Amino acid sequence: MFTQKIIPRFGETDALRHITNTTFPCWFEQARNPIFKIFNPDLDFDKLNLILVHMEFDFLAETFLKSEVEIRTYIDKIGNTSFTLLHEAWQNEIQKATGKVVIVYLNSETKKPFSIPDKYKAKLKEHFKEA
Amino acid sequence: MFTQKIIPRFGETDALRHITNTTFPCWFEQARNPIFKIFNPDLDFDKLNLILVHMEFDFLAETFLKSEVEIRTYIDKIGNTSFTLLHEAWQNEIQKATGKVVIVYLNSETKKPFSIPDKYKAKLKEHFKEA
Amino acid sequence: MFTQKIIPRFGETDALRHITNTTFPCWFEQARNPIFKIFNPDLDFDKLNLILVHMEFDFLAETFLKSEVEIRTYIDKIGNTSFTLLHEAWQNEIQKATGKVVIVYLNSETKKPFSIPDKYKAKLKEHFKEA
Amino acid sequence: MFTQKIIPRFGETDALRHITNTTFPCWFEQARNPIFKIFNPDLDFDKLNLILVHMEFDFLAETFLKSEVEIRTYIDKIGNTSFTLLHEAWQNEIQKATGKVVIVYLNSETKKPFSIPDKYKAKLKEHFKEA
Repeated sequence: MFTQKIIPRFGETDALRHITNTTFPCWFEQARNPIFKIFNPDLDFDKLNLILVHMEFDFLAETFLKSEVEIRTYIDKIGNTSFTLLHEAWQNEIQKATGKVVIVYLNSETKKPFSIPDKYKAKLKEHFKEA
Repeated sequence: MFTQKIIPRFGETDALRHITNTTFPCWFEQARNPIFKIFNPDLDFDKLNLILVHMEFDFLAETFLKSEVEIRTYIDKIGNTSFTLLHEAWQNEIQKATGKVVIVYLNSETKKPFSIPDKYKAKLKEHFKEA
Repeated sequence: MFTQKIIPRFGETDALRHITNTTFPCWFEQARNPIFKIFNPDLDFDKLNLILVHMEFDFLAETFLKSEVEIRTYIDKIGNTSFTLLHEAWQNEIQKATGKVVIVYLNSETKKPFSIPDKYKAKLKEHFKEA
Repeated sequence: MFTQKIIPRFGETDALRHITNTTFPCWFEQARNPIFKIFNPDLDFDKLNLILVHMEFDFLAETFLKSEVEIRTYIDKIGNTSFTLLHEAWQNEIQKATGKVVIVYLNSETKKPFSIPDKYKAKLKEHFKEA
């Protein structure tokens, strides 16, 4: 599991006085920084080798401005050229939202999907939900 | 079908030099304004009676800053207390991304799910994909 | 004057139930697209030759979700290597916010400030406030 | 001085491969959370008593995705009904951007500007730049 603490920003609320749903993709993206660094430790944009092809979100309860949020991120599945992540947003010990993201590994020269090298698979496996 | 023209903003690009994936939830939300007005013509926030519970996105091809984007929005399904929307993002006649959103109708006093009145269902039905 | 119509997005509101102040930099940026195209018609990022060095905003009245907003953009001053823009946000014929932005022209190879060529100055001059 | 650590998000970059300028208003806003709590400890939106009337930003150097950013916030001036804040964004011990924000204190019932009570002035004074 990867964890990331988030301090909500006033502009991330909306007229319903809770965190607006378009904020969650940004929070979950921030929580994926350590995963990008597994594949690209220097964050060299010319060698970028991951692309997000699917993302989904379920909203379980309202998230508020007042309190810190914890994003918990797990690896769900590892395929040949892609892997799936699960995200959870927790606030005051209540699970507020979940997310699922599918990321494809690319050959950084051809920009085509490519088998994920075993060394990266091993690092991802450390973060399976049951692990 | 509802359509909404979008002019991409420079800050909606990312270091990969295309529109960043967290922008699409915001574009699709803008495209839903006419749907909110079906249920709440004055956009009176105290009477707000819709809540988004699920959203998902598939990225088919890169979207660029240079050209206008058209968001096409359809009704996919209408249930008793909820309905599902489909969004498509088109740029230069190429479909770049799709989205699916589930919205629950609430009683604006109790804030509990409530049967969607027939008058609203009739308006939604005008926007089925095959219609 | 350049004009840009904006349809506010639900997520651009905040818990005070008006458009949140961090939205205005994004709206004004969208309104500058035609100015970027004067200097870089193909929006070729490798040849980008403008950089924003200062921006400021004054909030005069609340902006609401309900109605379209018009951004009016003028050229305020043209110096040797930089120019200043004025932005105004109008909603229902009321001026809601103003902005001022300073942009420096760069040599696209050296990335150093460079004298603005006369052909660009002439195009900018068409958009002076009094013009 | 108030300090706030920021972990940049991939979507906060732009096609120039640095943090886009519209991100800074959001980061500085997050850094003001402790100031809002001085005036409104419960963040009760119905009693909100501060309004931002001016904000400005100077960009000194590029900010990158790779490294944490520290936002340092100071009180610059305290007037009768308003006060001015200074923000600085630092990354790897280099100052990248500055901001100045003017906030007006409102009577939470009338929503009109009101003399800042001495107890709040005393708290603000602890954060003068020279302090």
